[in-house]
Amino acid sequence: MHSDDLERRIRARLDQLTKPPGSLGVLEELAVGYALARGQLLPAIRSKALYVFCGDHGVTQERISPYPASVTVEMMRNFVRGGAAINVLCRMHGIRPLIVDVGAAGPPLEGVIHRKIAPGTRNFAREAAMSRDQALRAVETGVQLAVEAARRCDLAGLGEMGIGNTSCAAAVVSALTGRDPCDTVGAGTGASPSMVEHKIDVIRRALGLHRPDPRDAIGVLSAVGGFEIAAIAGFLLRASELRLPVVLDGFPCCAGALAARALDAAALRTCFFAHRSAERGHAVLLEELGARPLLDLGMRLGEGTGAALGMALIESAVRLYREMATFEEAGVSNAPG
Amino acid sequence: MHSDDLERRIRARLDQLTKPPGSLGVLEELAVGYALARGQLLPAIRSKALYVFCGDHGVTQERISPYPASVTVEMMRNFVRGGAAINVLCRMHGIRPLIVDVGAAGPPLEGVIHRKIAPGTRNFAREAAMSRDQALRAVETGVQLAVEAARRCDLAGLGEMGIGNTSCAAAVVSALTGRDPCDTVGAGTGASPSMVEHKIDVIRRALGLHRPDPRDAIGVLSAVGGFEIAAIAGFLLRASELRLPVVLDGFPCCAGALAARALDAAALRTCFFAHRSAERGHAVLLEELGARPLLDLGMRLGEGTGAALGMALIESAVRLYREMATFEEAGVSNAPG
Repeated sequence: MHSDDLERRIRARLDQLTKPPGSLGVLEELAVGYALARGQLLPAIRSKALYVFCGDHGVTQERISPYPASVTVEMMRNFVRGGAAINVLCRMHGIRPLIVDVGAAGPPLEGVIHRKIAPGTRNFAREAAMSRDQALRAVETGVQLAVEAARRCDLAGLGEMGIGNTSCAAAVVSALTGRDPCDTVGAGTGASPSMVEHKIDVIRRALGLHRPDPRDAIGVLSAVGGFEIAAIAGFLLRASELRLPVVLDGFPCCAGALAARALDAAALRTCFFAHRSAERGHAVLLEELGARPLLDLGMRLGEGTGAALGMALIESAVRLYREMATFEEAGVSNAPG
Repeated sequence: MHSDDLERRIRARLDQLTKPPGSLGVLEELAVGYALARGQLLPAIRSKALYVFCGDHGVTQERISPYPASVTVEMMRNFVRGGAAINVLCRMHGIRPLIVDVGAAGPPLEGVIHRKIAPGTRNFAREAAMSRDQALRAVETGVQLAVEAARRCDLAGLGEMGIGNTSCAAAVVSALTGRDPCDTVGAGTGASPSMVEHKIDVIRRALGLHRPDPRDAIGVLSAVGGFEIAAIAGFLLRASELRLPVVLDGFPCCAGALAARALDAAALRTCFFAHRSAERGHAVLLEELGARPLLDLGMRLGEGTGAALGMALIESAVRLYREMATFEEAGVSNAPG
């Protein structure tokens, strides 16, 4: 069916449900967006999974985070044991969390999906974060995981963990958009104002050192990227082809989305943007992406926590669309058309 | 324990959890707000209920809604059968829906809690909507239901159904605040612009006819109120005393909250405001109440649909606070204080 026809049929069904037309607001648009992404008139969400892409960052040597780099691996252990914020939200909302090691600086952990490209990137303040081959392998890792995800679930969430990755995301966004780092750098896990100034300075100098070509997204990822951001880009590239709806979390995730769009203009066709985080660059990035996020709760934790809440809203919307009675079924008088 | 001490202990615990301090944003404030409302260091949400207060309105004789008044009772039947939007959201988020007839214009329905004051109010464009005694009985009905609710659940949501009740809510808000009806009247279920103009005119004339004293909230409810709005006010009065946290839905619910506050300045101590609806007067009313709503999804259905989504966010917040591991438990390095 042509997608215009499909959309017309979806909206016609929505308007037969026992509510004034449009009165569920954004939830109606979510139901339409989900059904169009699936290419189905009445899709169901039977299984939800959230991928937390984890990686380390050589740029932490520049003291751009108040937390030591060891926290990446420590938090991965916390994810596996079920003690992190993302575990709680996944339990609450019936989402399966999947922890993916694409480049953590530690030994393999039980319960984690092993796709390690290298034990952390190199320090992009001094040299390229990764080789071009590593960047391609990280993207390909995301592609492969999207293929698995499309078999496993009807709605995927993406999150990330990696001390230093808001620096890396800011550098990627500045490189791809030409925005000055003072627009894209924020406090991350909680950098002080002077640390934020230093972070801006480190990124500005790194962009001067590498001078990545904004038309070459793989080149940008190699110069200043992270394995998790590259993998997220790859995931989106394939998810959109496979019509798998994907819910994005905050700033590093959306930096991956920006890279995906630079690689393929159609890569974000099945994306939903869960929230506007408190990280300064995220509002700028959402604007670049033309995205209207669902939630604005001042969150800035990452891990996929915003995505998990967004997934619950999308599931609410799809269930309303599927399960509500029509005026006719319920014997409720409709307004005169 | 003094509530300042309790708040200090709650925040200290929040800051030991494996996340940067404050990084869960509004969810952290919800956890603090819920625990303070309960007066407990580590409260749990074990059971959630949502009360849908239903009533009819004589003012529908003035043609202020595109839907016939019969829809109130038809929708109550839909609630009982499980086909309405609020049923879907309650199923999805583990909330028990309770339908309360405080003044519908129809016979008793099986599956509905019968507390009918009268079969609909009178037309406030011509005479007082109800007697002072009826207003007091409707408030008392809400008080009694709050007592039951405090035994039954740890988190209550409030919603409403009643064709004509955005007119009645606008009249109550204008009467209590002195705001002109053009600030408080909106499209309701979907009135056309000319119908909205007519609605403003009807309400302005009614306020001129009754001239209710804004310091006499019972008088305001008698003149232009509705049974469901009066019952919501009563529910809040007692819920705050019983430390039962209550999540409010949209415009008519918040009009009930305004009336409750006029009766007792402490009545909203345990309230949460779920969302900013698309109904024009709601933003004005939230401002009057000093409320920051959790969601802004352009919803305007009522029934408690916004409240149900807000309850899921509050439960998410409370579970994060209860279930996340501390830095010490998880062996995760904290940032230097």
